[in-house]
Amino acid sequence: MLIIGERLNSSRNSIEKAIRSRDVGFIQAEAEAQAQAGAHYLDVNAGVFVGEEAECLKWLVIAVQGVTDLPLCIDSPDPEVVKSVLPLVGKTPMINSITLEPSRLEGLIPLVKDHGTKVIGLCQSEDRMAETADQKTEMAGRLAEKVAAAGIPLDHLYIDPLVYPLGADYKSAQATLDAIDRIMAEFPGVHTTCGLTNVSHGLPNRRLINRTFLIMAMTRGLDSAILDPCDRQLYGSLKAATVLAGQDDFCMEYVTAFREGRLA
Amino acid sequence: MLIIGERLNSSRNSIEKAIRSRDVGFIQAEAEAQAQAGAHYLDVNAGVFVGEEAECLKWLVIAVQGVTDLPLCIDSPDPEVVKSVLPLVGKTPMINSITLEPSRLEGLIPLVKDHGTKVIGLCQSEDRMAETADQKTEMAGRLAEKVAAAGIPLDHLYIDPLVYPLGADYKSAQATLDAIDRIMAEFPGVHTTCGLTNVSHGLPNRRLINRTFLIMAMTRGLDSAILDPCDRQLYGSLKAATVLAGQDDFCMEYVTAFREGRLA
Repeated sequence: MLIIGERLNSSRNSIEKAIRSRDVGFIQAEAEAQAQAGAHYLDVNAGVFVGEEAECLKWLVIAVQGVTDLPLCIDSPDPEVVKSVLPLVGKTPMINSITLEPSRLEGLIPLVKDHGTKVIGLCQSEDRMAETADQKTEMAGRLAEKVAAAGIPLDHLYIDPLVYPLGADYKSAQATLDAIDRIMAEFPGVHTTCGLTNVSHGLPNRRLINRTFLIMAMTRGLDSAILDPCDRQLYGSLKAATVLAGQDDFCMEYVTAFREGRLA
Repeated sequence: MLIIGERLNSSRNSIEKAIRSRDVGFIQAEAEAQAQAGAHYLDVNAGVFVGEEAECLKWLVIAVQGVTDLPLCIDSPDPEVVKSVLPLVGKTPMINSITLEPSRLEGLIPLVKDHGTKVIGLCQSEDRMAETADQKTEMAGRLAEKVAAAGIPLDHLYIDPLVYPLGADYKSAQATLDAIDRIMAEFPGVHTTCGLTNVSHGLPNRRLINRTFLIMAMTRGLDSAILDPCDRQLYGSLKAATVLAGQDDFCMEYVTAFREGRLA
């Protein structure tokens, strides 16, 4: 299970403030906390800084890399921003994200190919979001085609079927779960990933919904997620689901995580 | 999701003591708590009272029925005990449980048929327990055949594939999850159920493992479980998994359970 730490996102007030004030210490503490909590990649996003996104993201990348050698997940829809940041990046990163929108796709695919990065593909086109499992699977297939046609290994593609708030469509989670199952079966080699927080928007006890959704998605084959590894209840659910899936030989990882106080 | 409340079991010290001392108040409080927490059936077990099981179970049934009209789940492997208790039972109960052991099967099947009860069938034969998904599914098929051959509707059969402690076999949960999926697909009409506590035996943070296993099993099709509905974290997981499965129209049940303080 590949964990992409989501905390370094400028849509969070504390991160926006830290980027704005160039607070290296705050950013590095967030990076270190996620690394220690079990993240494999760290998402970095400066999207709220319209007109200054590239500059802010460069600063963020340098700050984070000053304290951890975890690979980064460059989170921007803008090919120019991604392109300007890539030369600063140490380990081969992930790019977050392509969609079926032609300008975004055509701008980012060459960067993914030339730099050998992994890439997140969202089930979304220029004119609509995929709502049903059929629509999500169909768009996933088109994303896989585009990636393969560019000569990028399918193993580098992480498809996010996108889940929408249950409060707006109480069938959305089920459609996403079905899509995960089908994408993993129909497009061998492709990975799936998902942001978790959207699903619970507007409902009470959101974190319960989020961690339950993670377990259900892993049960259907999800092999990556964009989440907060410092949420010990969420991380505990992830480790418990891993051991129950028979993917933790002799329960060693689970027991170690427990001893280190990382489960709740 | 059919919830069988597990608390009235003589293997729990407090229940053994209450049965022994004929403490009606204690038993009725346990029954009421489970009813209020959302149980659909109440399991009743006096198995530790060797030689007095029938007498103790009769007392337990009368005590419980004095305070709730929920149907009971008569928990004994002994056909004579079940037979002696059935005349006292109000609403049509469930019988827990048959296996492929001939004496148990032949003794209980006529009672299930004549009284029109539901019945739990364990994936276990006279000479072995089913460990792999193949073995569990094969035994489930034989149980379904026996039930159908006796003229009992398949809809009355709840198959428990049996999960064993991960500490002893770290693939056991996955085998059980695969079996649930296959049983629901291959034997239409049949239900699945499961006790949850066995899986976590010997591991730390057992309740985390138990509730994660419940969510995963529901995701694979489990439509009943034997559990403690008074465990608010477990019950919260169940309600969250139900809403995420798209089985809670407009999230009404989830929001109501939250307002009533039944989620944690």
